[in-house]
Amino acid sequence: MPTQHFDLQSLNEMTSRYRAQLINSLSGFKSANLIGTCNAQGQTNLAIFSSIFHLGASPALVGFIMRPDSVSRHTLENIKLTGQYTINQVSEDFWRKAHQTSARYDGDESEFEHVGLTPEFIDDVTAPFVKESRIKYALTVKEITPIKLNNTLLVIGEITHIICESSAIKSDGYIDIESANTVAISGLDSYHSTTRLSRISYAKPHKEALDIPLHGPIE
Amino acid sequence: MPTQHFDLQSLNEMTSRYRAQLINSLSGFKSANLIGTCNAQGQTNLAIFSSIFHLGASPALVGFIMRPDSVSRHTLENIKLTGQYTINQVSEDFWRKAHQTSARYDGDESEFEHVGLTPEFIDDVTAPFVKESRIKYALTVKEITPIKLNNTLLVIGEITHIICESSAIKSDGYIDIESANTVAISGLDSYHSTTRLSRISYAKPHKEALDIPLHGPIE
Repeated sequence: MPTQHFDLQSLNEMTSRYRAQLINSLSGFKSANLIGTCNAQGQTNLAIFSSIFHLGASPALVGFIMRPDSVSRHTLENIKLTGQYTINQVSEDFWRKAHQTSARYDGDESEFEHVGLTPEFIDDVTAPFVKESRIKYALTVKEITPIKLNNTLLVIGEITHIICESSAIKSDGYIDIESANTVAISGLDSYHSTTRLSRISYAKPHKEALDIPLHGPIE
Repeated sequence: MPTQHFDLQSLNEMTSRYRAQLINSLSGFKSANLIGTCNAQGQTNLAIFSSIFHLGASPALVGFIMRPDSVSRHTLENIKLTGQYTINQVSEDFWRKAHQTSARYDGDESEFEHVGLTPEFIDDVTAPFVKESRIKYALTVKEITPIKLNNTLLVIGEITHIICESSAIKSDGYIDIESANTVAISGLDSYHSTTRLSRISYAKPHKEALDIPLHGPIE
């Protein structure tokens, strides 16, 4: 199949928009999540992020990347102020509303209201959850590390509460996020639903890994 | 729909295997990529990673998380030694082979040979690409940052070469990774193909974002 080869020089000669689309496509599929926060006055904020990633299970840490000067700067300000935020998986039922949170609304406007999603609160967590989200969790910020190479920040939080549709949780702890219609993102602006190929067992040398049935007991 | 609520105490009381499955499912869909490296003797190494993420387009930076003591420690040693590595998107055609690279082979054995994938080389890059991968790129390591919270490392590289199936590249630079059958991962062991919902235009306040056609000119 014909392939295109870009070297460093051709990368440098691209327009910044072309380059942003191209480079954003290279890492593969990305997670689609909404981060919910509130400020000192209780004003809620909601912003979509495609840069949220698993960092470790013990302690339960999740990271995300942000630009301090971006449209989602209120998210950062609120996290610094309150120490708390929620992460809410985006599903097929509301992915267009989730995308719309990336519009540049004023600081005194809540994206919840503008895009038509519902804030939801639990005890001990000041940050709002998204009621419509079927898999969501609250975090306490642990570390904000500057990445000097491109002036971004790595924000790391520890999970304190998980709220998840019971039927999606399998007997070994795996959450079937596909059954909750969680979507994936590619590039800057493409949303995707998924179809499971299979779960597959831990790989061992010189042995074929076996398919793991989704239902029933797990060996 | 019935939901389950885990608080910090119930998280702490879980077995480590259950907890690993649960927490790994929370961040949403993950990218599926193979990292290719070689050592000073030219011995190739190949390892699957689900923690690779976009960090920025200008400069073109990609990050990934790893544990220094994990089965993929040879990847880290080789990156430190040679400064170079490749990232290769995993497609439906070889996802089982890609998964098999996570088996604990000895340091003098090449995963390429064991799992049945083909190393491929270009000028100026000592690290091997995966011939079977349809979207792949080479990087020079820029920074290895310890994350003290859980003794992991954030490895950041700058993209120096991109090799991509021509037909997947759209007129605005977006790469249709779905058309190249790139897969997504959820949790520790579940692989998924995707179906595009839509591309959608940049969100603006009080305006509905429009679908972007995949083919033809982009406004």
